[in-house]
Amino acid sequence: MSIASTTCPENRTDVTDEPALLPVVGRDTLVPLVDGRNVTYANLDVAASAPALESVAARVAQALPLYASVHRGAGYLSQVSTALYEASRRTIGAFVGAREHDVTIITRNTTDSLNLLAGCVPATVGEGRVLVLDVEHHANLLPWAAAPGGAAVLAGASSVAATLDALRAELAARPYALVAVTGASNVTGEALPVADVVTLAHAAGARVVLDGAQLVPHRGVDIAALDVDYVGFSGHKTYAPYGAGALVGRRDWLDAGTPHLAGGGAVRAVTHSEPDVPAAGAASATWALAPARHEAGSPNVIGAVALAAACEELAALDPAALHAHEARLRARLVEGLSQIPGVEVLRAWDDAVDPVGVVTFVVEGHDPGLVAAYLSAEHGIGVRDGKFCAHPLLARLGHRYGAVRASVGVGTTGEHVERLVTALASYVREGTRADYAVQDGCWVVRDDRRPLPDVSGLSGLVATAAVANVALAGGCGAPSEA
Amino acid sequence: MSIASTTCPENRTDVTDEPALLPVVGRDTLVPLVDGRNVTYANLDVAASAPALESVAARVAQALPLYASVHRGAGYLSQVSTALYEASRRTIGAFVGAREHDVTIITRNTTDSLNLLAGCVPATVGEGRVLVLDVEHHANLLPWAAAPGGAAVLAGASSVAATLDALRAELAARPYALVAVTGASNVTGEALPVADVVTLAHAAGARVVLDGAQLVPHRGVDIAALDVDYVGFSGHKTYAPYGAGALVGRRDWLDAGTPHLAGGGAVRAVTHSEPDVPAAGAASATWALAPARHEAGSPNVIGAVALAAACEELAALDPAALHAHEARLRARLVEGLSQIPGVEVLRAWDDAVDPVGVVTFVVEGHDPGLVAAYLSAEHGIGVRDGKFCAHPLLARLGHRYGAVRASVGVGTTGEHVERLVTALASYVREGTRADYAVQDGCWVVRDDRRPLPDVSGLSGLVATAAVANVALAGGCGAPSEA
Repeated sequence: MSIASTTCPENRTDVTDEPALLPVVGRDTLVPLVDGRNVTYANLDVAASAPALESVAARVAQALPLYASVHRGAGYLSQVSTALYEASRRTIGAFVGAREHDVTIITRNTTDSLNLLAGCVPATVGEGRVLVLDVEHHANLLPWAAAPGGAAVLAGASSVAATLDALRAELAARPYALVAVTGASNVTGEALPVADVVTLAHAAGARVVLDGAQLVPHRGVDIAALDVDYVGFSGHKTYAPYGAGALVGRRDWLDAGTPHLAGGGAVRAVTHSEPDVPAAGAASATWALAPARHEAGSPNVIGAVALAAACEELAALDPAALHAHEARLRARLVEGLSQIPGVEVLRAWDDAVDPVGVVTFVVEGHDPGLVAAYLSAEHGIGVRDGKFCAHPLLARLGHRYGAVRASVGVGTTGEHVERLVTALASYVREGTRADYAVQDGCWVVRDDRRPLPDVSGLSGLVATAAVANVALAGGCGAPSEA
Repeated sequence: MSIASTTCPENRTDVTDEPALLPVVGRDTLVPLVDGRNVTYANLDVAASAPALESVAARVAQALPLYASVHRGAGYLSQVSTALYEASRRTIGAFVGAREHDVTIITRNTTDSLNLLAGCVPATVGEGRVLVLDVEHHANLLPWAAAPGGAAVLAGASSVAATLDALRAELAARPYALVAVTGASNVTGEALPVADVVTLAHAAGARVVLDGAQLVPHRGVDIAALDVDYVGFSGHKTYAPYGAGALVGRRDWLDAGTPHLAGGGAVRAVTHSEPDVPAAGAASATWALAPARHEAGSPNVIGAVALAAACEELAALDPAALHAHEARLRARLVEGLSQIPGVEVLRAWDDAVDPVGVVTFVVEGHDPGLVAAYLSAEHGIGVRDGKFCAHPLLARLGHRYGAVRASVGVGTTGEHVERLVTALASYVREGTRADYAVQDGCWVVRDDRRPLPDVSGLSGLVATAAVANVALAGGCGAPSEA
C-alpha cells in the first residue's frame, strides 16, 4: 500500500508544480481551519459552481457604467447595452459552434435551458417523446416530463458499447423526437461518444440535445462539427457566475414552441378583446419568434456580458493546453485516491475514455458528509458530498447514500489536488482531529470556532440553501441534496 | 406659453440644484452627441432598467472572492456562499414586509415571479381564475393565462372611483382566486389605492398579488401592513441589475404549486421506475416545498447578494426623503412638459393621487421614436419610446402608436430633468439639428458619426434586442416593442 506523499518514490506523477491555467477571482482567498491556521482555499467543487475568471469580473466592471435598459431604450447607453447584449449572444453561440441559422437564447442556467427546450418539442415528431439515460443529472432528467409525449429513462449498461446497443434498440422500438444526453457526467466526468449518439438518433429520426453543463467549461464543444442539434450550458460553471446560461440550436422548434415565460419582449402584439363577458375579456398575444419569444422580461445583460467574456477567454486558450491541464490533474486525482485503502473511484461505464476533470469517490465505511466536512475544516478543501443531482445513477452504482466529488478546472492548481490526496490519506490513516456531529442532517464541526469573513449580512455558515426547508427536504444525508 | 428656462420668472420649481439621492455606477459616464460634444448621460429610463447603486457594485466585488457552489458544497466558501444567499433572501423578503410564514423566492425578474405564481394558483379557489386590469403591463397580463381558470382582463375606467366600482362588480359577478394589480403603472406612475383593492378582493375570497416592478424601487412596499398576499419585483429596476428578482408571499400556494422549473435542487428524491416498458421507464420526482421547489438549478447567488445590498441601502434611506426627491423631480417634469405647446402628459385615471416618478407624454404630430432619438443624439438624454409593454392601456388612452416615457430614481439629478424640459421645448420650437431616418423600423441619426465606447465586442449601436428578429417582430414603430 502506498499513501500519497511527496517523499514516496512511486509518486511519479506528483503535480504540485502545476499552475492554474487562468487567474480566477478568489484564488488568494484565505479560509480558516479548526486549528486556527488560515490557508488558501482549494476549490475542488468547480463542477457545481466555478469562480469568475478575473477577466470576466473586469469585463463586468467595464460594462456596468455603460449599463442601461435594453430592447427599446432610445438613449445612447441603451443602444450600447443592447449592442453589448446582442454581441454577447453571438459570442456565446459561436463558442459552442452555432450554425448560421441556429438561435442562441440567453437563459439562466442549464436547467432553465432544458426546461425551455422541453416546451418546444413538437408533438408531431416522434410522438413528442424524449429519450434520456439514467446517468443524467436532474437538469437533464426532470424537464423532459413536460415534453408532449413525456420522457422515457433508459437504464444504462455498465459499458459504453452495451449502452449504445440499448440506445439503438430503444430508438428502433418506438419513435422519439429527441435524445437528451450528457456531454460529460457531473458524477464521473465520462460520456458516451457524442458522434455515435448523434448517428443513432438521426438515423431514427430523432434530434439530439447535449447537456453541456460540464462539457462546455471543461472541454468546449462544436455542435456544428458534431451535428448536435441543441446544447444547453451554464454560466456559473463556465467561470461567469452572474446568473446567465444559454440554449443554442436549431431554429424551427424554438420559433414555434411554447414561450418559456409569458411577458413583455416575447410578444409582437397584445390586444384586449371582450367577446363574451361584458366586463372582463381575455388578453390575446401574438408571440415573437426566437430568441425574443423565450426571453420575456428584461434580460440579464450583465450575465450575458459575463458569459461572453468567459467564452472569449476560454476560446483563446490552446485547446490542447486546457485538455492537458485537466488531464494531468484528473489523472493524479484518480491515481492518488485509488492508492488510498478503502477508496473507490466511481465509473459509469468501464470502457469510457477521456473523461473531464470530475472525479467521484467513496471511502468504504465512511460517511461522505463527514469526509467532506473534514476536508474543509482541517485542510481548507472544498468538495461536494451527496448524490450530485443524479439519484438514479448513484442508485445504480450502489451508492444510494452518496459519495464525495472533487472537480478541477482552469483555476485549479496541482497543489489543490495534492492537498486532497494527502488529506484523504491522512484521514483514512489517522481519522479526524476535530469533533464532528450531524446537525439538521448535515455534518458540522462541533463547537465550530472558525471566524466568518467580514461581509455584510453573514451570521454563520449554512450547509444547505433554502434552510427553512431543510427538515422537510431531508437535509444533507437524505435524498434531498441538489 | 412659457418655455422652460432658468430665467423665466414663472419657473418657480426649477430643480437644477436637486442632487442625486444615492450614487449610481455610471453617473459620470460621458456620451457623445452628434455635434461632437460629450455630455454626462441623463438616464431618464430607470423605469425600464436602473443603474447599479455604487454600494451594490461594491458588495458584489466583496462577495465575488467568496463565491463558491451553494446548496450542498461542504467547503468553507460554499457554506459562506450559501449563508450569503440565504441572508440575501431574508433581507429581500424583509424589505417588502414579508410576514413570518411568507416565502421569498429568488426569481430573475417580475415577469418570472408572476409566471411562477401563475403556476401556483389553485384550481380549487375561485375556479382558479385571475382578474387583471387593462392598465397592466405585459408582465402582469400575459402570465395569468397559465392559471388553471385563465385570466380575465377588466377594462379600466377613466377614474379610480369608477375602476374600483367595476372591480367590485366583477368580483361579485364571478369567483376569482387572485386579483393581480400594479403597485404603480409603468406608463403613468399611477396606481389604484392598494388597500382598497385588497379589501374588495379579500371580501370576495380572492387573494391579491402586487406587481411591484415600479412601486418597490420608487417607493418601497410593506405587504404585511397592506395585507397584500404576494409581491413580485425586479433587481434590474431596483438598482441591482445582476439578473435576480423576487416573489414574496404566502406559503401555501407556493408549497403546493407547479414547480417553476424541473431540475436539481427542487426535488427531494428522484427514482427511476420501469413499470411498463422493459427498456425505458419514467423518472419520478418528489418535489421539495418552497422556496427550493421553485429554484431548480444553481441559483443566481451574485444576483441575490446584489439585490439584497440594494434593498439594504434603500431601506436605510429616509422614506420621506426618497418620496420628496422623486416628487420634486416628477412635479417639475409634469409642469415643464405641460407648458410646452402640443405636449400632453398621459394619465390612466383622472383622480389618481401621488404617482411615482414615471411620466409618459406625447408630442402632438411628432413620432415618439423621433423625439426619443433626438433627445439622445442632441442632448445625451435616455428616454423610452413605444408602448412600454402595456399595449391595451396605450390603446385605451388613444395612443396606439406609442408615446415617450421619462422616469426618475435615486440616481436622477434635477439637471437631468431640466435638460429634458429644455431640450423638448427646443425641439418643439426649432426642430432637430441632425437628420434622422427610419432604419429597420427604428429612428436613427442619418450618417451617425458618434464614436462607440471602448468595450470589447461592440461594433455599433443597436436599438432593439434580438435584432435577428426585428423585421419579423415589427421593429420600433410597430406593436413589437417591449
